Amino acid sequence: MIERRAHPADSQPSAMHMIDLIRKKRDGLVMTAREIEFLVHGSARGIFPPEQISAWLMAALLRGLTREETHALTIAMRDSGARFDPSHLGKFTVDKHSTGGVGDKTSFLVAPIAAACGLVVPMISGRALGHTGGTLDKLESIPGYRTSLSMPEFERVLAYCGCSIVSQTPDLVPADRVLYDLRDRTGTVESPGLICASILSKKLAAGLNGLVLDVKTGSGAFMRRQQDAEYLAALLVATAEAAGTRTVALLTDMGQPLGRMAGNWIEIVESMQLLRGEQPRGSEDLRELSLILAGWMLFLGGKADSPQAGQLKASAALNDGSAERVFLQMVEAQGGDISVFEKMQSFHRPGARLDVMAWDSGFISKMDTTMLGWAVQRLGAGRVRASEPLDPHAGIEFHAHRGDWVEQGQPIATLYATRPGLFSEPEGLLRSAIRLSNLQPKPVELVSRVWTRTNAEAHLRNALR
Amino acid sequence: MIERRAHPADSQPSAMHMIDLIRKKRDGLVMTAREIEFLVHGSARGIFPPEQISAWLMAALLRGLTREETHALTIAMRDSGARFDPSHLGKFTVDKHSTGGVGDKTSFLVAPIAAACGLVVPMISGRALGHTGGTLDKLESIPGYRTSLSMPEFERVLAYCGCSIVSQTPDLVPADRVLYDLRDRTGTVESPGLICASILSKKLAAGLNGLVLDVKTGSGAFMRRQQDAEYLAALLVATAEAAGTRTVALLTDMGQPLGRMAGNWIEIVESMQLLRGEQPRGSEDLRELSLILAGWMLFLGGKADSPQAGQLKASAALNDGSAERVFLQMVEAQGGDISVFEKMQSFHRPGARLDVMAWDSGFISKMDTTMLGWAVQRLGAGRVRASEPLDPHAGIEFHAHRGDWVEQGQPIATLYATRPGLFSEPEGLLRSAIRLSNLQPKPVELVSRVWTRTNAEAHLRNALR
Repeated sequence: MIERRAHPADSQPSAMHMIDLIRKKRDGLVMTAREIEFLVHGSARGIFPPEQISAWLMAALLRGLTREETHALTIAMRDSGARFDPSHLGKFTVDKHSTGGVGDKTSFLVAPIAAACGLVVPMISGRALGHTGGTLDKLESIPGYRTSLSMPEFERVLAYCGCSIVSQTPDLVPADRVLYDLRDRTGTVESPGLICASILSKKLAAGLNGLVLDVKTGSGAFMRRQQDAEYLAALLVATAEAAGTRTVALLTDMGQPLGRMAGNWIEIVESMQLLRGEQPRGSEDLRELSLILAGWMLFLGGKADSPQAGQLKASAALNDGSAERVFLQMVEAQGGDISVFEKMQSFHRPGARLDVMAWDSGFISKMDTTMLGWAVQRLGAGRVRASEPLDPHAGIEFHAHRGDWVEQGQPIATLYATRPGLFSEPEGLLRSAIRLSNLQPKPVELVSRVWTRTNAEAHLRNALR
Repeated sequence: MIERRAHPADSQPSAMHMIDLIRKKRDGLVMTAREIEFLVHGSARGIFPPEQISAWLMAALLRGLTREETHALTIAMRDSGARFDPSHLGKFTVDKHSTGGVGDKTSFLVAPIAAACGLVVPMISGRALGHTGGTLDKLESIPGYRTSLSMPEFERVLAYCGCSIVSQTPDLVPADRVLYDLRDRTGTVESPGLICASILSKKLAAGLNGLVLDVKTGSGAFMRRQQDAEYLAALLVATAEAAGTRTVALLTDMGQPLGRMAGNWIEIVESMQLLRGEQPRGSEDLRELSLILAGWMLFLGGKADSPQAGQLKASAALNDGSAERVFLQMVEAQGGDISVFEKMQSFHRPGARLDVMAWDSGFISKMDTTMLGWAVQRLGAGRVRASEPLDPHAGIEFHAHRGDWVEQGQPIATLYATRPGLFSEPEGLLRSAIRLSNLQPKPVELVSRVWTRTNAEAHLRNALR
């Protein structure tokens, strides 16, 4: 009597097939690092067709990725293309990354502050996405500013002034371009593991020593549920630390636009005012968050003994003009015309403006910030399609913030559009997004939690995922 | 105080977007018939890119489809292209469909039997898939037989002899071609709802009045778990009945190859022997299943008062030569050379043959029929790629069946291959697939269950899906 031998598939030479990796994730099994590497590199090189990659992405979203899978995915994506090595600059390199919000312009403050204090900030940024604005789009409202630099140009700007804000080069993390584009079109964006690998692969490929993550929560965040944002923050910190980058994540409020401007050029204006040491009314939260984030960057980089000490140092860099100098050096080094900063208000030439008055008296109790973000985009500040031009002068200036009391008829916001015909939808969105109430809302903490390696690890161990 | 209005997305003109349908299924929500129609028609017309369709397919597989969704999907796919209308032939049209097995050649028997008894059988068949053989590939081993007919040709053959076995025309159910091709490459085949819609859309587009489904279980079936096969059978019956076609499903054993031949031409030979009223040893199960299936076809079509009475009538059609006549008429009408049936054995010209002897004495207790199917395909009877030619003369003749006692050294099977170099892998598969034991195995029922509308509905109500 002969016992049946093993199934022949088990004894065949182990040629890996994409279809088997899809089935494995579909069936809820855990993939090996080698399998994930095979998948990522084949995707980056165009070996696997889009339908196979997106079937895997949907299976990964619905079945989830373990911490080990997320780590392997991050590393494989980081290594899918060229890597930037700023070590010969001889300084601690640090970056700040936000998960995206409305009116979030902290990059224009923290990068020059950290550079002014002796760190190097090689910041590779993105464009407007969904309801959120794009750092690159905002910078390009400065005439001549080039966001697309070659590697040697990028290094020269960093060596010259300590920071540079650029777009991703084609050879850096090509796997992310392939995967991100597919995720965007196949409903597979909202997976903590996929988000984590997408963010960190690019940051790790830039050769960072330290990283400060600004994970948004509230009505304007991509992840609105506090617990999802907390899980993502912990996953980001643990994964980046495991890859050798000192990392913290701050959970910050995106329950209202940050600062008083949302758009492109008007956000540069607000940033420049703060860089000049001014403290205009309505920009308090922007200034505070920028100092906190910069404080952590300085602490990670060994320029301060504590994040609080870093914050004081950051404040000094705003007050003594050193951060402004670095910002102007960077803009000029990247081809920007810095003379526009001498006449910032008159350079703002929107096609049309509309003041929206309070329709009632009351406290501003709630703001649907995602809706406000869409209003900004539809005034012309964003794109419907990736290739479309956008209007650098469009946007919204907020004259009142959450918790403020407004009298009926008082200007609540000013809309700037390419042409008057564009006001109707954004105005409706604005009115829908803002709730007036007789009751003063409870104040919301700007930073609700800080994640470092220790509490991130503990959180992930306890999370039932 | 003003209450916030509804979210603007709710009040926008309801332009449907594929991305929203993907997200809806991803989040486990139930899609409307209108949404499914939008998805199917857009897929059939090439409006949606493959990556979006396959992301939806993976979400549908993992989240499941409700009965209502499955029904809507079936109807939308049926209506995605041209439909065949055989009503002017003035007869009850009926078909038999099997979920695929090894050595399954009942089509060549039931179609001419039903036609000989006065029904019309417009049978649109498929090709070899995975480890299973293809009805069209088998028929094409008859010199000259054309499986690809135009609609008018198809109708002429049906009017002439009452049955016609052809390939799917390009304009019939184009949605299935798109979806099936993607499912095959993205690991999304094994979904009851998707399988049901794929099978039934094609059957319903052929304008059938009645349908007999042969749902396989056991080691050679695509669905090996009894409960999965039962759910699929019930879903098929309920969905087809809801679409107006009288339908039954038989759960039948595929725990060993059906009959004694598995290949292409040799399956035609075995079928012709039975059509001639012969009852060769080893073909008993094939004859019995064919009569049971044909009995149900005759009962559904009103040619018999019960399935059992139909079975007797079917047996008579084999014994009196009427079924054989219809089969030869069909072959000739579709261009086939019927002179080959005068010298069937000498027409079989395999490139090489190998007798495999029993390696021990014992009862044949188990057969891994999927593995045997792969052995048949790798002898040359199947294709690795869709466009490859296959060898009509390759295959396996089984000299012993499950439950038989074999003596060591006695021939257990004969392998026919294109050339001797191909024997090694199939022979290994055959030896691995067959288990010899001292214990006689328990007999397995050929038909374990029959599903009609009543018990199918009850089963689906109870199934926790």
